[in-house]
Amino acid sequence: MSTASNLPAVTVLGLGPMGRSLAGAFVRAGLRTTVWNRTPGKDGELTAQGAVGAVSAEEAVSASELVVVCVVNNEAADAILRQDAVTRALKGRTVVNLTADTPERARGTAQWAAEHGIGYLDGAIMTPAYSIGTPEAVFLHSGPRDLYEQHRPALEALGGTHTHLGEEIGRAATFDVALLDIFWTAMAGYAHAVAIARAEGVTARELASFAQGIAAILPPLFEQFAEDADSGTYSGEINPITSGASTMAHVVEVSESHGIDASVMRAVEGLSRRVIGLGHGSDGFMRVAEVLGRR
Amino acid sequence: MSTASNLPAVTVLGLGPMGRSLAGAFVRAGLRTTVWNRTPGKDGELTAQGAVGAVSAEEAVSASELVVVCVVNNEAADAILRQDAVTRALKGRTVVNLTADTPERARGTAQWAAEHGIGYLDGAIMTPAYSIGTPEAVFLHSGPRDLYEQHRPALEALGGTHTHLGEEIGRAATFDVALLDIFWTAMAGYAHAVAIARAEGVTARELASFAQGIAAILPPLFEQFAEDADSGTYSGEINPITSGASTMAHVVEVSESHGIDASVMRAVEGLSRRVIGLGHGSDGFMRVAEVLGRR
Repeated sequence: MSTASNLPAVTVLGLGPMGRSLAGAFVRAGLRTTVWNRTPGKDGELTAQGAVGAVSAEEAVSASELVVVCVVNNEAADAILRQDAVTRALKGRTVVNLTADTPERARGTAQWAAEHGIGYLDGAIMTPAYSIGTPEAVFLHSGPRDLYEQHRPALEALGGTHTHLGEEIGRAATFDVALLDIFWTAMAGYAHAVAIARAEGVTARELASFAQGIAAILPPLFEQFAEDADSGTYSGEINPITSGASTMAHVVEVSESHGIDASVMRAVEGLSRRVIGLGHGSDGFMRVAEVLGRR
Repeated sequence: MSTASNLPAVTVLGLGPMGRSLAGAFVRAGLRTTVWNRTPGKDGELTAQGAVGAVSAEEAVSASELVVVCVVNNEAADAILRQDAVTRALKGRTVVNLTADTPERARGTAQWAAEHGIGYLDGAIMTPAYSIGTPEAVFLHSGPRDLYEQHRPALEALGGTHTHLGEEIGRAATFDVALLDIFWTAMAGYAHAVAIARAEGVTARELASFAQGIAAILPPLFEQFAEDADSGTYSGEINPITSGASTMAHVVEVSESHGIDASVMRAVEGLSRRVIGLGHGSDGFMRVAEVLGRR
């Protein structure tokens, strides 16, 4: 493809739904794209679009300066990258690891890469596979800035917004884990609210518009509570945690009166009661962030 | 006040922060407002603005056709309303109980009211005390529609939006409890995310804009997942619960590696693992709403 001649070549390792979306976006952006998956037979659609299917991981990484990895977790990534032949082939190239895992494992992989003369950037994808290649995609990156700047044109072929969070390699995973924490906890609250509502004869549909209203008040509170947390002042003037805890107890009571598991809210109420027991009952709920890590 | 001559009279029982805000909004709207609190000395600012301070609950309820109650919980409301002299004085009047409690207790109070010839509406206030009297205030009501329509002009003097959720008296409390469930669970996720981030050297401020981004994707998901829940189809095509559970495990692992309590996410992951164990691993997370109440 003549339009691709000045664009870098890229290899994508891992062709699950996310890996296929990444490779497809690279192909559509005109990059010479080599793909490989541990289990064969996942590259048919991609090679039909112009991707090159490699027969081994070694061959795949040898085809490009930039190797993007997106597999189920870092253990699976290591199982591919740390094979001797693959590690040797990677020398002098750059790995961008978009696999979701912990900051500690990102640091481990970065150390291995440094020991073998391999450039390493860690990243996280905060949006679903179908967002890749669209303005909605959200990518977080961390690692050496010069390496990031060097590969940024190729990464930006994936569409969406790309944020370099800093040189400390664990930062992308830290943000990923923290944001998934918010997401899944909030979703658990919603699923539980729907269960309570239905037990009381209220449909999820009836609750939905009010639930959306609750979600809409979260962003400004997140902003305000971030100040509280960083400054260590947890004002409870508007809503002291004692008042919150009594409404949490209502949630537990109504759940359990219907035989609905209240383990999540029991844990939330327990943390609040602990804050109160430690003498911070007139503080706001965010004091919980301090008590969570108290040893 | 001549402007008040056609407006109903109202009594407010309970002068905590919320009760004072309610009474203040009635006074400013020109209603003849009588106030009372179990502990004296809370009505100074209100009487200075034109409210009438009653010396007893009996005197207070005798002053108005409409009696608004807002105290700490329904037990406290009952302790006031179910005194013989007060109950007798309430006959033929209407109580609007804006105290937060469970649907079951709302039903209990409604039954008591019916037995004593007292009109009864139950309600919930979804916004902070400072919102009362402004367009931001959100009130939910349930109970007999004719009674609601009769007192609506007075209630609307409190500003904001008022929604009558239906005649079943427990509905306002059901929505209240379900919405507080979402709110506090989401807040717990945020506080926990901040604790993880800080343990990894990321400030709450750095996380805040991304956290707001996560909150912003919730409303459309709540809409979509309400359909899932009501129809019983929990499609996991975009995000199967197996994939969610593995990111939940990362949250638990990172938390606990820093000595941070992970009880909330452990409970969320446990529910997800249970869904998977019941054979629904390819479903979406909302299947949890079914499993929560499984007996």
